Amino acid sequence: MKVETLRWFNNRLEMIDQRILPAAFEYLSYYTASSVAEGIRSMVVRGAPAIGVAAAYGVALEALHLQEKSADEFKTGMETGFTVLAASRPTAVNLFWALQRMRKVWESVAMQTPQQIAQRLLAEAHEILAEDIRINRAMGTYGAALLKDGARVLTHCNAGALATAGWGTALGVFRSAVEAGKKISVIADETRPFLQGARLTAWEMVQENIPVTLITDNMAGYMMAQGEVDAVVVGTDRVAANGDVANKIGTYMVAVLARRHNIPFYVACPLSTIDMNIASGADIPIEERSVDEVKGFRDYHWAAEGVKIRNPAFDVTPAELVSGLITERGVVLLPDAQSIRQLMLG
Amino acid sequence: MKVETLRWFNNRLEMIDQRILPAAFEYLSYYTASSVAEGIRSMVVRGAPAIGVAAAYGVALEALHLQEKSADEFKTGMETGFTVLAASRPTAVNLFWALQRMRKVWESVAMQTPQQIAQRLLAEAHEILAEDIRINRAMGTYGAALLKDGARVLTHCNAGALATAGWGTALGVFRSAVEAGKKISVIADETRPFLQGARLTAWEMVQENIPVTLITDNMAGYMMAQGEVDAVVVGTDRVAANGDVANKIGTYMVAVLARRHNIPFYVACPLSTIDMNIASGADIPIEERSVDEVKGFRDYHWAAEGVKIRNPAFDVTPAELVSGLITERGVVLLPDAQSIRQLMLG
Repeated sequence: MKVETLRWFNNRLEMIDQRILPAAFEYLSYYTASSVAEGIRSMVVRGAPAIGVAAAYGVALEALHLQEKSADEFKTGMETGFTVLAASRPTAVNLFWALQRMRKVWESVAMQTPQQIAQRLLAEAHEILAEDIRINRAMGTYGAALLKDGARVLTHCNAGALATAGWGTALGVFRSAVEAGKKISVIADETRPFLQGARLTAWEMVQENIPVTLITDNMAGYMMAQGEVDAVVVGTDRVAANGDVANKIGTYMVAVLARRHNIPFYVACPLSTIDMNIASGADIPIEERSVDEVKGFRDYHWAAEGVKIRNPAFDVTPAELVSGLITERGVVLLPDAQSIRQLMLG
Repeated sequence: MKVETLRWFNNRLEMIDQRILPAAFEYLSYYTASSVAEGIRSMVVRGAPAIGVAAAYGVALEALHLQEKSADEFKTGMETGFTVLAASRPTAVNLFWALQRMRKVWESVAMQTPQQIAQRLLAEAHEILAEDIRINRAMGTYGAALLKDGARVLTHCNAGALATAGWGTALGVFRSAVEAGKKISVIADETRPFLQGARLTAWEMVQENIPVTLITDNMAGYMMAQGEVDAVVVGTDRVAANGDVANKIGTYMVAVLARRHNIPFYVACPLSTIDMNIASGADIPIEERSVDEVKGFRDYHWAAEGVKIRNPAFDVTPAELVSGLITERGVVLLPDAQSIRQLMLG
């Protein structure tokens, strides 16, 4: 089964509702920037690359929505659309990267009619989606070479087809390894509170017949101590210029444990995720989400009444714990400010 | 509210059903060894010291149940009761410690009538319960001295009144610190899959008006990196002769993170939890529980169909990561085989 996380269909954006997977598989439709922003905020779509693609379509949808308006009204409406999309989630930089790219395209055709601008923006969104899959494929090839035949690889959260336009970043590496004839098996942390590992990564790997074992987040250390983990591969929402990696809450814990057990810790990271404007992880904004997510899951709450709750959605893994960044231009081993600067210069 | 985890009432054992806390507060009644064993296995009662007390009452209940039988039938029935109780859960050594203590009492009065033996065993179970609370109080006093005023203390799982006959081991330290006039606050890991932190520790601390913040297990590293944790105190199910500590799955992860951040990691550990027959943690049996627990919570399952699942219920923290064992005889800093031998010699 090919997973199309986002697709353009009948002049609208459709996105798989990832809140209800795997119990139900359903597409939701989007017509405006603000509805896409709400889809991002509520995690219908999640995963840094997928959020970037969704935001690009959000801009295109807004342009199509406003194309009958006057040039002035079009411009004002578009600015509101950009603002609403930019406010949807703070941590993943791909969102801002995609919005900036769409803005540059808009500026390059600003003298044309709203209809023409809308068509050009839609074409760019399509291109961002297609590019994302090509990039994932390239990362997969580079990353697969890092995994030995028979490797048991732990991953956290979901950096799969569902986190991208398709194929996936970390899970794309696993798919590419299998395509290259390697027998690998995956250990998926369940990833509280949103359970992306139990619901999404496990589901994707089962669909692909890649052997996958689910554990709770607190079992990763036990598995490593038992000698049952050969490598870790995760995705990322933003990498600072010095190589510090923001990713789903709990990634830092996995990295610390991997270091203790001398297990390589790789981060699958398209170049669009590297933020050269941020010097170190300390400056990456960390989203705190609703405490309701930690009280239980969906509407089923089990936490004791009256307890205070924290819900940071991401953490920062310092570059010194990262064995390598897997990008579409190759693998940067032991990343630091200098090697990342060279990578970005091509 | 005084939490009576286990109580003797109308010639039967009553135990709070910890599977349904905090949504409901209910006592279940027990009349035989096999029903107590099932209560332990299914985690109506859990926590190493509470399991030990429950097992002692299980032996006494079986004796009362069989006291009208012939001496031979009584003996055979009692042996079956011991066997069933010993098979209920493998990791917590307090279970075996309590059974051995009850057996010695039985042997010391073996020549008496079944009725007399039953009364003697019941008195011993009462004494084990009362002792457990006295021991927790003593540990609390020693442990509280380790915490500075204002300390923010992280704990994993529930080593509270609900894990003992009352007061608690790790949470007993917090209660004693508050009683001594210290302002402390608690950070509770939710502790998947059984959620003892979210359901039991949070509930106990809210009852006591001790400030408590709930996090998912994978947030512990983030909190430490933010400088929001001053100390860790956990309980234990079995400590090996060299100081290696078996405790709820995820404890090892917390210990590794604490070491990285130079945060002291203390284990509240009654002497009955130290197993001098086991040289190191590698020899402690680790229970693997039903995979259904990891599929979701209670009957609400969210994991993808077809995924393989692991469910080790405990892990081992090597002694080198333990800053101190808090016992009823005082604190053993940086425990090792020699200091533990000295401790046990009194």
